[in-house]
Amino acid sequence: MKIELICTGEEVLSGQIVDTNASWFANCLLDNGFELSRKTTVGDRMEDLISVFQERSKTADVIVVNGGLGPTEDDLSAQAAAQACGVPLVVNEPWLELMSQWFARSGRVMAANNKKQAMLPEGAVMIENPVGTACGFRIKLNNAWLLFTPGVPHEFKRMIHDHLLPFVRSQRSSRTPVKLAKLMTFGEGESQLASRLDSVTLSDGIDIGYRASSPQLEVKIFARTDAAIAKLDETTKKVKQQIGESFFGEGGHTLAECIHKQLIKSGVTIAAAESCTGGLLASQLVAFPGSSRYLQSSIVSYSNQAKKTLLGVSSDTLELHGAVSKQTAAEMALGVRQIMDTDYGLSVTGIAGPEGGSDDKPVGTVCIGLSTRNQVFTQRLQFGNRSRTWIRNMSCAVAYDMLRRAIAGQFPIADYPMLKRIS
Amino acid sequence: MKIELICTGEEVLSGQIVDTNASWFANCLLDNGFELSRKTTVGDRMEDLISVFQERSKTADVIVVNGGLGPTEDDLSAQAAAQACGVPLVVNEPWLELMSQWFARSGRVMAANNKKQAMLPEGAVMIENPVGTACGFRIKLNNAWLLFTPGVPHEFKRMIHDHLLPFVRSQRSSRTPVKLAKLMTFGEGESQLASRLDSVTLSDGIDIGYRASSPQLEVKIFARTDAAIAKLDETTKKVKQQIGESFFGEGGHTLAECIHKQLIKSGVTIAAAESCTGGLLASQLVAFPGSSRYLQSSIVSYSNQAKKTLLGVSSDTLELHGAVSKQTAAEMALGVRQIMDTDYGLSVTGIAGPEGGSDDKPVGTVCIGLSTRNQVFTQRLQFGNRSRTWIRNMSCAVAYDMLRRAIAGQFPIADYPMLKRIS
Repeated sequence: MKIELICTGEEVLSGQIVDTNASWFANCLLDNGFELSRKTTVGDRMEDLISVFQERSKTADVIVVNGGLGPTEDDLSAQAAAQACGVPLVVNEPWLELMSQWFARSGRVMAANNKKQAMLPEGAVMIENPVGTACGFRIKLNNAWLLFTPGVPHEFKRMIHDHLLPFVRSQRSSRTPVKLAKLMTFGEGESQLASRLDSVTLSDGIDIGYRASSPQLEVKIFARTDAAIAKLDETTKKVKQQIGESFFGEGGHTLAECIHKQLIKSGVTIAAAESCTGGLLASQLVAFPGSSRYLQSSIVSYSNQAKKTLLGVSSDTLELHGAVSKQTAAEMALGVRQIMDTDYGLSVTGIAGPEGGSDDKPVGTVCIGLSTRNQVFTQRLQFGNRSRTWIRNMSCAVAYDMLRRAIAGQFPIADYPMLKRIS
Repeated sequence: MKIELICTGEEVLSGQIVDTNASWFANCLLDNGFELSRKTTVGDRMEDLISVFQERSKTADVIVVNGGLGPTEDDLSAQAAAQACGVPLVVNEPWLELMSQWFARSGRVMAANNKKQAMLPEGAVMIENPVGTACGFRIKLNNAWLLFTPGVPHEFKRMIHDHLLPFVRSQRSSRTPVKLAKLMTFGEGESQLASRLDSVTLSDGIDIGYRASSPQLEVKIFARTDAAIAKLDETTKKVKQQIGESFFGEGGHTLAECIHKQLIKSGVTIAAAESCTGGLLASQLVAFPGSSRYLQSSIVSYSNQAKKTLLGVSSDTLELHGAVSKQTAAEMALGVRQIMDTDYGLSVTGIAGPEGGSDDKPVGTVCIGLSTRNQVFTQRLQFGNRSRTWIRNMSCAVAYDMLRRAIAGQFPIADYPMLKRIS
């Protein structure tokens, strides 16, 4: 089955926004045993939309069209679909009704141009959008089913899960089974890990793929025949063994989500003191519901004054070793743990750049501390002259990994082949 | 002139890597007065490459093909181009010579498979790559010039600047210029704002587009003729006036980036106290270099204990009004400002869900406080039962907007048509 994606919108085409829906969609298909065969991006011009629908529908079986279902004038997808199919737009009464109820519930007045969102090509099948005012729809043109979806990422994702995946499963004539196992790793680069995993003998129908989604690296094991599926668990076990220390979890979760689950399960409490990460460490955990059970507080001590006033870091330490030092990281981790009386205290202090580096402490120098009830562990890493975002994300990841190891009873400081430790 | 882009490679199509070349290229074209009319992404299969070259060359004038020029087996662009054009691959002696010199200079031996990189379709015009081993080339097929470029971003960018831009300038028969203005807004929904902007009369060749990138909404004014470009400033001024209170900045920046710039410029200092945003408010500012100049600290006071210990919120207030109340928000904002002795203190406390709501304070209830040196402003908003991410992001945005207004000398609390204020 040939599945294609058509992304619409000047802002996607003109690069004003990076098209995260497209890469998410391609990954989602892969996870579910399908492959994307082509992606086309066009702007908001009517003739471009019509011609791409007509062209691609001759070759593809299912075409997901993303975007252009909004209430404004430059949202032309429904109209273009109607013209491409040679049918008029008609009001979809069920959706108009649902939309009215939606506005009534949220105490807002439905603007006149929202009614446009209930105008669908005649003969199209409406697809409910439980989280927005743009309904989706599907319509057959030439060889293909065109499935129109909203551009807002969470609405798009919901519709793909609720509707597209069941639909393509039902359309697939000869069922080619696919099963996928995912092993999450941290600290080793793709090429290095891949060459180590070359030594694992794989049965016919089993492939290994990699997806780098910094800071973690996902190892995907695909089984594409019934015989291969029967051997998937055994292979996964072997691969996991070969990965060794870098393995931190199964099933495609981020390191932050993994540590969140571990914290909930273990019943411990934590507090953090953040300098260069500036709240990112706490924020990535607070993204998950239930984080209030373990996260007592995080103190973003961006200035030296804040480090002293809020965390009790001594002036001597700051003067003698500097704000970015293992000594300061130790006092930050210890300070925040004692103030909040938690089981663990985490700290990060570093130079995220692009300015602020020195010969002694260049951009990318980050010190990370973990305080337990008995001990304080610190390490100084040199991430190199990477982007501010990369350095901040990697700093959080190392801190989570130290905590993960400590809770699991391992030594908190590990050797990461892809990262350079100074001391 | 119709300019298209074809991106090749399984890793781009399958979303393993985000295609930054494409968005960079589209932006670069726009900056130089051209528009990208379509972008197609295909994998590494020979038949897909040949068919996309043949298809698109019937419609487009210039097609930039990116990727697939490397030395390995899955780099098929040159071979596919040769087959699509019906010509053989031949050695390009000048490039072979340059490549040999390049390897000699860097003291390395040229691998056998690098010779593949000098095999070009017969009749193609070689394009030198001064920064890598993959030369580019261009060849005419049907209506279009196909221009093949390397996938490595800095090599690609160099070739676009040195070769593609001069080439398309020389090819352009009738100049169709484009200019774009962007106005950033916050607090009003797309449909409502669009219907208000309908009253602005637009000259021929000027269009308005919208891009919702929650929490902000971007209004884009495109001018597509010389006459339209001459009127762009005037139109932009009129649109800005009509937008009114929701306008916060020009040029496609986020609210966080705007407030960051304003804070740097005004020389004030701030501190934050965050509950449900959990460090996000600080983290979004720390993402920008230089934020240390104004951000003293943020205290993520997730637990009641932290609110008392770290911020001095009184037990009475917490007991009487609850952690999510205007009173608590006021004490948090005031507390953090006094502790850090800053010009402004910001606070957010709310229920981000999906659990933790009550009849009285359902999910989406958020109280936001701003303390100046003389006064404390608070508001209680009801965002509705939206996602945790949405509620947290919107909370930060409202806090930034309060601060922005205060620094600009406006009243900090505004009416946001898309948000419901309780008190």
